[in-house]
Amino acid sequence: RCPQTERAASTNSELFTLTYGALVTQLCKDYENDEEVNKQLDKMGYNIGVRLIEDFLARSSVGRCHDFRETADVIAKVAFKMYLGITPSVTNWSPAGDEFSLILESNPLVDFVELPDNHSNLVYSSLLCGVLRGALEMVQMAVDVRFAQDTLRGDNVTEIRMKFIKRIEENLPAGDE
Amino acid sequence: RCPQTERAASTNSELFTLTYGALVTQLCKDYENDEEVNKQLDKMGYNIGVRLIEDFLARSSVGRCHDFRETADVIAKVAFKMYLGITPSVTNWSPAGDEFSLILESNPLVDFVELPDNHSNLVYSSLLCGVLRGALEMVQMAVDVRFAQDTLRGDNVTEIRMKFIKRIEENLPAGDE
Repeated sequence: RCPQTERAASTNSELFTLTYGALVTQLCKDYENDEEVNKQLDKMGYNIGVRLIEDFLARSSVGRCHDFRETADVIAKVAFKMYLGITPSVTNWSPAGDEFSLILESNPLVDFVELPDNHSNLVYSSLLCGVLRGALEMVQMAVDVRFAQDTLRGDNVTEIRMKFIKRIEENLPAGDE
Repeated sequence: RCPQTERAASTNSELFTLTYGALVTQLCKDYENDEEVNKQLDKMGYNIGVRLIEDFLARSSVGRCHDFRETADVIAKVAFKMYLGITPSVTNWSPAGDEFSLILESNPLVDFVELPDNHSNLVYSSLLCGVLRGALEMVQMAVDVRFAQDTLRGDNVTEIRMKFIKRIEENLPAGDE
């Protein structure tokens, strides 16, 4: 069940980008409206995040983060770099330090993509929100994640807004079994 | 329409692997039987291959192949390496030189995957067949691609069998417009 370590760890992302596009297209066929597609993508992302965290902790050798600022840095500089080949900037901290934004100058998931007019409510990259939510839940952080800006919808940058909700106290299934 | 060149070209493949798993799972929900899922995956792969070839030619600087043996080598050593981080071996040539096998010691698409008993006819990685078929069609080669062995189904290796059908003579839409 472990990733096979003998194979090369990195690949070009275009095949991923196009496969993700096929997934979104399929969901748009399956569900009646964009909101439902967004929800499904987020849910799939959550299930992916819950499993991906194990791979991330193994590869990155990142230890426990001491505060949300450190978490933000690890997400931007290690996790995004590792899985999407980009390093978003971390900005727009709330005064309380419980909310920040990841600004993506470019979003590899949307290469080649144009939203059709009849999908104006589609949050195309919703999977990423779910991945972040699921992965962080496995290290006992409950977070809210949403797209605040999206180049696909005409914004200049893509902005993912993350809000710390609470530390999860109960015992979780071990993430590294 | 071009990939944004400023971003890093390589990423870890686990996010891709898990996203592909979400796509297959969704199709298994959508279609009645495994054969139909295989067909859909192949079709999606075809559409991906038709677009991916452009990225491949741009990145690889590979020129026109002079024969099917050269094509086989480029697929194994350049394309698989670039997009999946593995280098299959090329073997089992037919005497006429029109068929060969790609042997994958490991298949990144199936990391983490176990086929449930009720999906014994699922050819999980069918997308790859479609990608190869679509990409080669854009460089005017009609090929037949299928899985001959699959570790997911208990075989020792994964074997993709490729058969040259014909050179496509008619003018195709330019692949690099």
